[in-house]
Amino acid sequence: MRTVGQRDAKHNAARLKKQRMSIPPFAIRRGDMEEMIPPFGEEQMSNSVLYMSMSLDGYIAGPDDRPGNPGGDRFMRLHDWYGFQESNAGGTGWGAHFMAESQATGAVLAGRRTVEQVDHWGGDSHGVPIFVPSHRPNPEATAKYPLVTYVTNGIESAMAQAKAAAGDRNVLVLGAYTAQQALKAGLLDELQIHQIPVLFGAGRRMFDVLPQRVELEIVKVIDTPDATHIRYRVKR
Amino acid sequence: MRTVGQRDAKHNAARLKKQRMSIPPFAIRRGDMEEMIPPFGEEQMSNSVLYMSMSLDGYIAGPDDRPGNPGGDRFMRLHDWYGFQESNAGGTGWGAHFMAESQATGAVLAGRRTVEQVDHWGGDSHGVPIFVPSHRPNPEATAKYPLVTYVTNGIESAMAQAKAAAGDRNVLVLGAYTAQQALKAGLLDELQIHQIPVLFGAGRRMFDVLPQRVELEIVKVIDTPDATHIRYRVKR
Repeated sequence: MRTVGQRDAKHNAARLKKQRMSIPPFAIRRGDMEEMIPPFGEEQMSNSVLYMSMSLDGYIAGPDDRPGNPGGDRFMRLHDWYGFQESNAGGTGWGAHFMAESQATGAVLAGRRTVEQVDHWGGDSHGVPIFVPSHRPNPEATAKYPLVTYVTNGIESAMAQAKAAAGDRNVLVLGAYTAQQALKAGLLDELQIHQIPVLFGAGRRMFDVLPQRVELEIVKVIDTPDATHIRYRVKR
Repeated sequence: MRTVGQRDAKHNAARLKKQRMSIPPFAIRRGDMEEMIPPFGEEQMSNSVLYMSMSLDGYIAGPDDRPGNPGGDRFMRLHDWYGFQESNAGGTGWGAHFMAESQATGAVLAGRRTVEQVDHWGGDSHGVPIFVPSHRPNPEATAKYPLVTYVTNGIESAMAQAKAAAGDRNVLVLGAYTAQQALKAGLLDELQIHQIPVLFGAGRRMFDVLPQRVELEIVKVIDTPDATHIRYRVKR
């Protein structure tokens, strides 16, 4: 049994190397990408992974980001690439791939702003529990939603609880502030950035309160006309 | 003869399409990239191109960016990928490629902060003239350096002068503020972003004063372990 919070760096390095060799991003070509989308679901280990669609100038939300206007004005420009419009069924192509990947996670660690904007997704995220690090508890939400836990004793505790709940599956990290707190505390393992070919000019930035430099390793780049998908691993 | 400032959108679109087909970025693999670096220098037209090395969180300079400390603290982290350390001769691999590409430009449009930090590179940039849009003239610099022109009647005029000087060659755009002013005025054609796998957390951002959304087209992605090189074309 793996202990929650214990990290197996050598195993992870070997897994990354194997992934890189077995799924060469360079085999993917524009036009026939649907056929080339690699299978996933094997070789999963428990990593905490931030998934974020971001404009080239670093915005993840438009202006006026609040409950009632989640993501701010013209937010969906950052999510066009999922292909929701075409299918109404979880996206197409790489959108469907990344949607399935994120929904295979075993727990969610999300910021309070994120979850409150969407009323905790109605109580769970794709059936798995949600952990919200926050200084203030939210008795109404936790009474209403048994799978929602507000963790008031620090992000380390919140991540440990999320990893315990996720078991061998990954922890999906959502929310800019929370992701930066996790980075600061050395608790974020990977970043899956969907970089969108647009300059927003205004809104809310992904990275704004990170107090230190963090070195990353490029794990995989997927080049599509709609987005550049870059997977980073945090160097330790 | 092309008129300065006139744009031939159809021709450009055809050129982009041809480039994309003739130089598939997907043919480039880690490890053997030196052999695969495409030739360049053919099919050049006069475009204005911003070249910028940027951290994932959007910084192009570290803290305390000023004359005497150009680029700010630990600035060179963003330029390690050039390989200056190894060769002292203009970089290695993709560094040498992009260095040669930028030095094949026929004129430079650069921000005042940029040029003053490096004393106008001693009077020229790789032998070609430098145009500096600024509200204030700089009589000392222009008296000393005949190839340096401070343009005080607007960025449109500065870009027109740079394009006229460049002839059929591209105009190299440098400086965050100047590039954003060019974007705002619809005068920037392409962005060559070298995205570095590091989070800076502090410093000076590339995009901070852009007052509007700008849609981009991904022209080419080059995936290397040291940087993700993404070429964008500004949509009009």
